[in-house]
Amino acid sequence: MEAGPPGSSRPAEPGLCLSGQRGADHTASASPQSVAGTELGRHPQAVAAVLPAGGCGERMGVPTPKQFCPILERPLISYTLQALERVCWIKDIVVAVTGENMEVMKSIIQKYQHKRISLVKAGVTRHRSIFNGLKALAEDQINSKLSKPEVVIIHDAVRPFVEEGVLLKVVTAAKEHGCSDYDLEFGTECLQLALKYCCTKAKLVEGSPDLWKVTYKRDLYAAESIIKERISQEICVVMDTEEDNKHVGHLLEEVLKSELNHVKVTSEALGHAGRHLQQIILDQCYNFVCVNVTTSDFQETQKLLSMLEESNLCILYPVVVVSVHFLDFKLVPPSQKMENLMQIREFAKEVKERNILLYGLLICYSQDDQKLQESLRQGAIIIASLIKERNCGLIGQLLIA
Amino acid sequence: MEAGPPGSSRPAEPGLCLSGQRGADHTASASPQSVAGTELGRHPQAVAAVLPAGGCGERMGVPTPKQFCPILERPLISYTLQALERVCWIKDIVVAVTGENMEVMKSIIQKYQHKRISLVKAGVTRHRSIFNGLKALAEDQINSKLSKPEVVIIHDAVRPFVEEGVLLKVVTAAKEHGCSDYDLEFGTECLQLALKYCCTKAKLVEGSPDLWKVTYKRDLYAAESIIKERISQEICVVMDTEEDNKHVGHLLEEVLKSELNHVKVTSEALGHAGRHLQQIILDQCYNFVCVNVTTSDFQETQKLLSMLEESNLCILYPVVVVSVHFLDFKLVPPSQKMENLMQIREFAKEVKERNILLYGLLICYSQDDQKLQESLRQGAIIIASLIKERNCGLIGQLLIA
Repeated sequence: MEAGPPGSSRPAEPGLCLSGQRGADHTASASPQSVAGTELGRHPQAVAAVLPAGGCGERMGVPTPKQFCPILERPLISYTLQALERVCWIKDIVVAVTGENMEVMKSIIQKYQHKRISLVKAGVTRHRSIFNGLKALAEDQINSKLSKPEVVIIHDAVRPFVEEGVLLKVVTAAKEHGCSDYDLEFGTECLQLALKYCCTKAKLVEGSPDLWKVTYKRDLYAAESIIKERISQEICVVMDTEEDNKHVGHLLEEVLKSELNHVKVTSEALGHAGRHLQQIILDQCYNFVCVNVTTSDFQETQKLLSMLEESNLCILYPVVVVSVHFLDFKLVPPSQKMENLMQIREFAKEVKERNILLYGLLICYSQDDQKLQESLRQGAIIIASLIKERNCGLIGQLLIA
Repeated sequence: MEAGPPGSSRPAEPGLCLSGQRGADHTASASPQSVAGTELGRHPQAVAAVLPAGGCGERMGVPTPKQFCPILERPLISYTLQALERVCWIKDIVVAVTGENMEVMKSIIQKYQHKRISLVKAGVTRHRSIFNGLKALAEDQINSKLSKPEVVIIHDAVRPFVEEGVLLKVVTAAKEHGCSDYDLEFGTECLQLALKYCCTKAKLVEGSPDLWKVTYKRDLYAAESIIKERISQEICVVMDTEEDNKHVGHLLEEVLKSELNHVKVTSEALGHAGRHLQQIILDQCYNFVCVNVTTSDFQETQKLLSMLEESNLCILYPVVVVSVHFLDFKLVPPSQKMENLMQIREFAKEVKERNILLYGLLICYSQDDQKLQESLRQGAIIIASLIKERNCGLIGQLLIA
């Protein structure tokens, strides 16, 4: 199976697109996925989603409507769109936004390279917005590029953590049950709207705790922490040599593995034109520890940064790169080494523009095994902190372990 | 009005105790406070609280029961106890915990110096636990140090953000309405338990969004962010001189004020035996920027650290101290300055034991006004990041602006 060349397009979320990318292996054993794979043929082929996103978020206590509030500098609605568009069988996604936010929404779609999105104007109420979305999907619209769907999923713009399994349940239920009395009794007007104007079936389906809605400011905090946690589950240690098993980078890798439970730590060499590394980038690893040993400057880190910049990995999430250097007090005076490494501040400023957070880490090297282990352990703690927090204010800093 | 000497006891939460400490001024204009002050005389004098805390937190997805999950290294239940004990008119707080957690709970009470707390054994259900708490409050208990209350507030151990205003509403409603049919219809068994076993009135009162319950892991994330935000609202810039208005510390203060909206930035000198500073510590400022100019080492920072260690300010929350130093490239080679400052790593390790997070910040000094402003601005961003994140993994680091 061949994945596309790096840089050709924004990578999909790992494990959620059914297109067969290597990334999909991560969670392919989860049942909703296989169900989707098996049952997709039996589903209505024409599924669309409508997102009412015209709200003003008065409960949030912030001036920005909540769907546009930034999480890791990206608007919340972009996370929701990402969750929907990675589901291959949703053919069209219609977003209803107010006139004043139309341009903002267009720039979000462009910046984060969202696909299959159409915009309609929001109504004065949530239901009017849904109505407008459904109307756009109805086939009597002139010049519409949208195809009339058999099933429409109506999804809040502020529920970013929707999983394919739940969406599948919605579609299955819509097909099996149609719009029964039960639904109408316990449902909302959305159901009736869908029924009346789109000649399309609809049903209320129970969700999961993940479907929770961002309503208050505390929910934004929670969403940010969840997203940070999700993208911090894998660290790739990049070495500047392939051969040496006693390479100090391998020692660091071992300490990272033992210090950071629940985090997958892999290692790759930059050699062979970095082909393996390109695959890791394609698989959406958002954390890199680049060990510079054979050269005394940032040569290896710069190679890695170039690959990342070309890959478009950083479009959706900030990527952390920790440039690791070793300092042997007996060989080089620390002050000299530190002065050499000060140029990291300039690099960090540059790559921040591309959503890469670059930090420097100077690990004290010692011939004494115990001292070296302690330095490496300290280094691992610092790396873990940097990855966990993704703190923009500290980019370009040279930390010492 | 005299506040107690520093170090005599753990300071109360700002603005919530009615004892008249200067700290109470911060939010004294909020209506629940004044209402409390005015109406307290008319309230039942004997108010107690019962906290069922015997749950196992199965929805949290973590092995620790949620009331014991740490937030900034302190268990959640300690935040809830803090919220209740700062309300002066709650005379007794009874916590129901399972036998296996009894010792954990005792050590929490001791470590965080909670007052007016009694422990009872939890029952097999939440209601049994409440029953046990109420029984302990009933006067027929032999050897009980508790006095029989007129009103009992039953409060979840996992709702840490309860405000005095809501508690007052509960007490007022209990007094005014007693246990009506309405309450019984919409209430829970708790109400009936309270009525039956304690000869005490009870009523369900509507809460506020702040009363929200920590249920899922995402709620822990949200709680941590809210707490971090709350203790990051004030920064005290400590100068090593009182006289000089052009002191570079004042320039930093100005930049902090303009860069950090919504944060109160004050400044104090360490002179005069630091009396003003002691008042600021008493008022629970959790963030200090210590500017070392007249001496070339950590003399001033060490003075501040000693004061903080004596004050007990750090019992409830980690206190951030940023030790700021200036570097004039023309006068001193940066490497020498940096080597001098490396000892901060040892200080940081020491004071971490007392819950103080110490970081170093080296600001490049320039005669060029514009360059200096840029360095100060960079310094302010770093300070803001350190205060916001309270990252233990980065203590003792020397950051450069």
